[in-house]
Amino acid sequence: MTFVDKLRAAWKKNDSLLCVGLDPDLKKLPEAVRGRPDAIFAFCRDIVDATADLVCAFKPQIAYFAAERAEAQLEALMAHIRVHHPSIPVILDAKRGDIGTTAEQYAREAFERYGADAVTVNPYMGGDSIEPYTRYPGKGVIVLCRTSNPGGSDLQSLEVGGEPLYLRVAKLVAGPWNANGNCGLVVGATFPKELAEVRARVGDLPLLVPGIGAQGGDVEATVRAGRTAAGMGLIVNSARAVIYAGSGTDFAARARAAALATRDEINRYR
Amino acid sequence: MTFVDKLRAAWKKNDSLLCVGLDPDLKKLPEAVRGRPDAIFAFCRDIVDATADLVCAFKPQIAYFAAERAEAQLEALMAHIRVHHPSIPVILDAKRGDIGTTAEQYAREAFERYGADAVTVNPYMGGDSIEPYTRYPGKGVIVLCRTSNPGGSDLQSLEVGGEPLYLRVAKLVAGPWNANGNCGLVVGATFPKELAEVRARVGDLPLLVPGIGAQGGDVEATVRAGRTAAGMGLIVNSARAVIYAGSGTDFAARARAAALATRDEINRYR
Repeated sequence: MTFVDKLRAAWKKNDSLLCVGLDPDLKKLPEAVRGRPDAIFAFCRDIVDATADLVCAFKPQIAYFAAERAEAQLEALMAHIRVHHPSIPVILDAKRGDIGTTAEQYAREAFERYGADAVTVNPYMGGDSIEPYTRYPGKGVIVLCRTSNPGGSDLQSLEVGGEPLYLRVAKLVAGPWNANGNCGLVVGATFPKELAEVRARVGDLPLLVPGIGAQGGDVEATVRAGRTAAGMGLIVNSARAVIYAGSGTDFAARARAAALATRDEINRYR
Repeated sequence: MTFVDKLRAAWKKNDSLLCVGLDPDLKKLPEAVRGRPDAIFAFCRDIVDATADLVCAFKPQIAYFAAERAEAQLEALMAHIRVHHPSIPVILDAKRGDIGTTAEQYAREAFERYGADAVTVNPYMGGDSIEPYTRYPGKGVIVLCRTSNPGGSDLQSLEVGGEPLYLRVAKLVAGPWNANGNCGLVVGATFPKELAEVRARVGDLPLLVPGIGAQGGDVEATVRAGRTAAGMGLIVNSARAVIYAGSGTDFAARARAAALATRDEINRYR
């Protein structure tokens, strides 16, 4: 099953547009797991098992694993999700961007080593830096468009030919770069008007939307701006607000409660 | 010693602007090392030991290690260079780009886990995505500006306020983003005129220039366009043309010969 098919099925099965972001910062892990040699894996696995029926995707952020020499724990986590929650697609958040021969290696890392269903990539190096990923027809390739951080405007809002750069990126990704029909876009929740502008130009393309929860994006405005006519099309990411909802031995139950509340809040505005 | 001090010292000591790029593609490794469990490390180490007196820097490309689950071999390679060739700075080519909290993890990966002297980063997410790296005052942060691949023009050449996007990036990096004086830029060798435009705007900022050798950039045009008034300022990367110069048991000697010829060719035009 392709990434997009898997995503559509998870949207329906779990009645959810929520993606739980797995950003396991060792300093923030609950004491219940902190001392374990596989603390990062154990923490993420417990969050995953507690929320898998409430989400449309999981999104591990590879930087948190790489900084801790925990690639083996990321492999174990990906395998755990594949075996125990095979209907939930996994987006590896890696934001890769490099020339073709190097991009081929990064694509192998994401899709073959880790078995991710989709990967995030950076558009700055252009179409031929994206193609080694889209060449995997079953995999999703989610390209940075408009990001939710303060500096996101430094380049993305610059005007090129009468439109901001991020809209040019949106049109490239929805057009020529999407020859295999497996692209998506990252559009931050902190700018609902811009999210609506992107949606208006890209049809039903999946939009990964970080920035609700800890980053301050408004759920109602985000969903109304970004949903498709059918009330789908969004992968609304929440990381810190879900995974650090509790810090005691009940951290997984608290994460579940936060995920449930966020899923239901999103659904109110679909 | 800071990255820039180390780079300046290596430019002088080895009379060289050549950087050898370590892109160890398992399929291309000489038979002499291919069967070893640490083939990637052994190959890179032999190249490094054979060329260390001819270069101003080494640049391992992390994708080639990550695709092969070879992070431990990259750690071993970095340690080998630190111990045996302590005067040669190492640029970890990772082209990272993410929001602040995640960028902090990538900075820890590059500078603390691997002990790199410098790292390459992507500007698309703006100033606050660069700051977690520049915050390490002794480390170098080399930002993508104008890349040598065919798709490099897709975004980088778009006109913003009367100038191409890559020149805007060059000015941001040489200006506000360089508050700690530790930034550099990646500018491909395939566009010497654009390299000269960048040099004219960024003073003595170090420019990492990939694209000579296998990618077809012209050495004379590159050096004349990119050198500073003092005949310095460049980190001219050659990877495939050096590391795969030979495929027999004499691969390291052949790499040395290729590095020597390239160094001398560069020096003819300084």
